Amino acid sequence: MFNLGVDLGGTTIKVGLVAENGTIAARAACSTCPERGAAEIIREIAGICQTLCDSQAVPLSDINSIGFGTPGFIDRARAAVIYSANLGFHDVRIGEELSAFFPQIPVYVENDANCAAIAESESGAARAYASSVTITLGTGVGAGVIIEKKVFVGYSNLAPEIGHLVIETDGEPCPCGRSGCMERYISATGLIEQTARAVCSHPDSRLALLAHEDGAITAKTAFAAARQSDAAAQEVIQRYLHYLAISLSNIVYCYGPQIIVLGGGVCNEGSALLEPLSRELDRVLMPDSRGKVALALAHYKNDAGIIGSAMLYRFR
Amino acid sequence: MFNLGVDLGGTTIKVGLVAENGTIAARAACSTCPERGAAEIIREIAGICQTLCDSQAVPLSDINSIGFGTPGFIDRARAAVIYSANLGFHDVRIGEELSAFFPQIPVYVENDANCAAIAESESGAARAYASSVTITLGTGVGAGVIIEKKVFVGYSNLAPEIGHLVIETDGEPCPCGRSGCMERYISATGLIEQTARAVCSHPDSRLALLAHEDGAITAKTAFAAARQSDAAAQEVIQRYLHYLAISLSNIVYCYGPQIIVLGGGVCNEGSALLEPLSRELDRVLMPDSRGKVALALAHYKNDAGIIGSAMLYRFR
Repeated sequence: MFNLGVDLGGTTIKVGLVAENGTIAARAACSTCPERGAAEIIREIAGICQTLCDSQAVPLSDINSIGFGTPGFIDRARAAVIYSANLGFHDVRIGEELSAFFPQIPVYVENDANCAAIAESESGAARAYASSVTITLGTGVGAGVIIEKKVFVGYSNLAPEIGHLVIETDGEPCPCGRSGCMERYISATGLIEQTARAVCSHPDSRLALLAHEDGAITAKTAFAAARQSDAAAQEVIQRYLHYLAISLSNIVYCYGPQIIVLGGGVCNEGSALLEPLSRELDRVLMPDSRGKVALALAHYKNDAGIIGSAMLYRFR
Repeated sequence: MFNLGVDLGGTTIKVGLVAENGTIAARAACSTCPERGAAEIIREIAGICQTLCDSQAVPLSDINSIGFGTPGFIDRARAAVIYSANLGFHDVRIGEELSAFFPQIPVYVENDANCAAIAESESGAARAYASSVTITLGTGVGAGVIIEKKVFVGYSNLAPEIGHLVIETDGEPCPCGRSGCMERYISATGLIEQTARAVCSHPDSRLALLAHEDGAITAKTAFAAARQSDAAAQEVIQRYLHYLAISLSNIVYCYGPQIIVLGGGVCNEGSALLEPLSRELDRVLMPDSRGKVALALAHYKNDAGIIGSAMLYRFR
């Protein structure tokens, strides 16, 4: 048996034909072009699903489920997207619409952060742990919480919105309407802003030089300049790691996971991120809690969405 | 059938013989005197249990369980207290020790904040809701999380420690070793400290007058002076409510409860607390989340420990 996993992003749609063991047997992608509307998008996805099956000579009777990972608020029972700003979706009943193409195959829809957490929990960095939190540091901050190998979902789709926990009362304004949200300090966007400020206040630093050479400030800039012993960059990274450690410590005291898995572009720094972060996390935890939570980089990167959504059937 | 509920506090031990419907048929109390050691304490509790049963002519065969609510870290599987600073307990196997007196009766041990949450969820302010958080604003901040009518416990007793979520990075130092913990701002102790500071900086205020008249500053002082239109007191209360609302909003985005129940001494203020807090919570939530979480005062006050611990058997 196979499952089809659909990673429905604001820019790109990725579809994979995924074997039971989590390997991707075949894959395809197309542009989302959200402006064409949900019905047209779902029609194209159905076509890609059929093509992938045909390419591997897999009959539809061998397809166990179709899973969708998407940003936004989800109605799991109806396999629908209640609202997604990125996709421009309002109450799109994916399950219902897709049943016109594949009437026999169950469809599952889940938030994309939860899909990444599922992929890591089932066969990624957290596979040996019953309880894990996977946090993705990208444009924003997404997080999926797995408790005893099940996705933790709050009542009426209110939670978890971990990226919007306040870690600095009356701190930096967040587009969500709140102030001082974790996301403002620990997302790639937050790191870029903190780097930009340091470039302005230290125009003669190696950090500023590097930013001008590259023609743009990215989440890599401060890490690169810090490696070249630039004091301004080291200060940015130290502050960033402190906020990140405070955020992770709050996750520890909320959910008590065995492991926290870090994903998103910032994690390309590898051990340059993980090792000092691990030390800083120990420093901000209560003495009794130190050393009890593992910290790891995500195993899946761009495939987390496909693999996690193909595994959704296991969680119903 | 009846259950025995034991509220094992640092100062007082309260024991109740509780009917299935949650009413207390008989009760007794004694001083804890932790210095006498666990074995002696448990012996006295066993005696009280027997006396209560005798007083109501309830044979031991009609006792379904004995539940213990206690501060500290719990090993539920072994019915043991791993560590409790208040009680001076280190790995006290309550279940094992009590079986010498009541070999046929199962013993359950739970954290006291979770017992209060169970009592509110089963027959108190949250009884109509599947998912609730009960937060107690006392000397410290305790919180119990109920998800789908079950107590939420983290892995390896690390969570939840909601009172120690950071809401102010590098804020006020907390005895736990962290800085900026919620508890420092929203506990009764935190309110008293904020009131004391306002008294110092506004020595001619009605707040300062009231504090001097009473001979001491309590959690009531600022509320009382604010009711008399004292500007300094109103500022203290406004700030306190803001921190409390931020804390509750973080709970909303962690757990997505249907209702948050507020307990502890601060809640004696009743609607003078609840109404402005409800408005402030709406103000600090994302627009989409407003009005989706109910807020209520605890139904059980001093009896929450007895009633919640007597109900522990339902959760295993």
